[in-house]
Amino acid sequence: MRFVLVVGTTQTAQIPGISAAGGSPELLATTPSADAELLVYGEPVRSGIVPVSPSGCPTPAVVTRAVREILNFEVTVLDAGLSVPTGAPTVSVGASPGEDIRQVDPVPCAEDVFAEARHLGRSIPDEELVIGEAIPGGTTTALGVLTALGERESVSSSLAENPLSKKRNAVETGLETSNLEAGDAAESPGFAVEQMGDPMLAVASGLTVGALESGTEVTLAGGTQLLAAAALVRHAGVNDPLRVATTAFVANDETAAVEEIADDLNVDLAVTDPGFERGNHVAFERFLMGEAKEGVGMGGALWLAERAGVSMDTVRDRIVDVYARVVGDES
Amino acid sequence: MRFVLVVGTTQTAQIPGISAAGGSPELLATTPSADAELLVYGEPVRSGIVPVSPSGCPTPAVVTRAVREILNFEVTVLDAGLSVPTGAPTVSVGASPGEDIRQVDPVPCAEDVFAEARHLGRSIPDEELVIGEAIPGGTTTALGVLTALGERESVSSSLAENPLSKKRNAVETGLETSNLEAGDAAESPGFAVEQMGDPMLAVASGLTVGALESGTEVTLAGGTQLLAAAALVRHAGVNDPLRVATTAFVANDETAAVEEIADDLNVDLAVTDPGFERGNHVAFERFLMGEAKEGVGMGGALWLAERAGVSMDTVRDRIVDVYARVVGDES
Repeated sequence: MRFVLVVGTTQTAQIPGISAAGGSPELLATTPSADAELLVYGEPVRSGIVPVSPSGCPTPAVVTRAVREILNFEVTVLDAGLSVPTGAPTVSVGASPGEDIRQVDPVPCAEDVFAEARHLGRSIPDEELVIGEAIPGGTTTALGVLTALGERESVSSSLAENPLSKKRNAVETGLETSNLEAGDAAESPGFAVEQMGDPMLAVASGLTVGALESGTEVTLAGGTQLLAAAALVRHAGVNDPLRVATTAFVANDETAAVEEIADDLNVDLAVTDPGFERGNHVAFERFLMGEAKEGVGMGGALWLAERAGVSMDTVRDRIVDVYARVVGDES
Repeated sequence: MRFVLVVGTTQTAQIPGISAAGGSPELLATTPSADAELLVYGEPVRSGIVPVSPSGCPTPAVVTRAVREILNFEVTVLDAGLSVPTGAPTVSVGASPGEDIRQVDPVPCAEDVFAEARHLGRSIPDEELVIGEAIPGGTTTALGVLTALGERESVSSSLAENPLSKKRNAVETGLETSNLEAGDAAESPGFAVEQMGDPMLAVASGLTVGALESGTEVTLAGGTQLLAAAALVRHAGVNDPLRVATTAFVANDETAAVEEIADDLNVDLAVTDPGFERGNHVAFERFLMGEAKEGVGMGGALWLAERAGVSMDTVRDRIVDVYARVVGDES
């Protein structure tokens, strides 16, 4: 099994109030670079930051890293348009940072990046891939892609209060700018990403298509963003079995119809609950309040831990250790 | 412990007859990209090739990968000027492919790359780094740097017959072009690399200096090329303990004064003999004939196996497995 983290950026994240990842434009741009470092090295390296929300909610990378320290799985990071250099090793598939979906053609590289990621997915020899993401603003672009494909228009949020009307406004504007209506890109997933998506979606869906074509088992580790990637895979005509592994926080998000989208797409949904209510830590509290919910493959990491027979007690203890090491003592 | 592989290219490799890595200009350029993939994935991914010499000697990456499959150590690849894209994840430190040392200024990025690699070496949190290299033509540039620094002018070779006179001619021409005499760059290691070296040497020495400065233990995994990196570290004024771990093939190379250079530089030399004469395989035979000898951290990997109490029987069996998988059945 190889854990692949797809990290990138989109200017869509800079729309005020749509993302909890980072508190400033600089932090938003740095978060995916920092998340990759946390997962690979267990500490920030070049980025110099550990992403923590203003209320104290740490990046889900802390959770995924904690599971990795228990299971020792191998990680490969794919660059889906980072805008700040990372100290983590990355594979390039030719992606550039995405522009704001309210503009024309925010991801002009979508088709090329999909093709390159597909080629890579075919070539990686592992029998199983677990694919996560880190891209601030990504639920808004996921909504854009689901809408352009004609799928259920529902996404989760990294904020406790899902700013759905802001996301819908951005998608509306984007559709108008692109001269599209909902469902117009159902036959052309590459075009859906190019006009309404982000580079992570091109990379994750291309990698998945290539992996499935070569007989590799794929689990998409995330919430509605990776359901949007799954939708792109289905609209590319690939109907092999596919799993999305996410957290109970996303599954219980009443603003996001996660089970329904998974059903629509004929995707198995694995939901893992880390039992944070049985812990006592600021990190757990913020997740229980509905912040972050997912990201950096958190749901897939928890699912891998469960599959390996590791108790959530053990996972929580390790999360506290990683938090203490990278953020500091609980304040 | 983290195993860092520094991969790059230099046009110096294109001088006829100086390198066994790859049989054609294209293969020479592709070899480091392929070596990184073999180490990370256990198979070629994007490069499409497994470097094997015309006589059937496989890349030492097969040996290092075999040890990695036993010990499961983590690998990070640094891009020191690849000229062919690799499917392995890489960290960029701003290096470009090196030019021929017979020209002026073959590594103009040397100082910047050294600084960036030093910063990375300071930031990587592991307590121990083992640093290997893959750069065809690298013993000639190593000779260039040792000469420019005023150190013992002696290097090994990936060919059974060390083409020392060809290397010396190239270095002579390079010195003339750069208007330098032996020892002229003793006080300026960055200048030595810029005028007479390759980008791997800038990355490996910068990384080592940064790691040592932050209290990280460093083992340079290789032969005379990494002794040249050690020389750069010493000429940068860093006198911390430093180990070079190489193979018996390099240590027994009478054309290369490995022990003497290590003594000159106050570097501990660890020599590991994989006992290939006790195996029966074309790969072992070619190494016993004096081909390859080292590369892709082979000596360091063997040393790590020995330190972990893994027998060389076990290592040889795994080498045969990896060879069968990536090259095919013994012909």
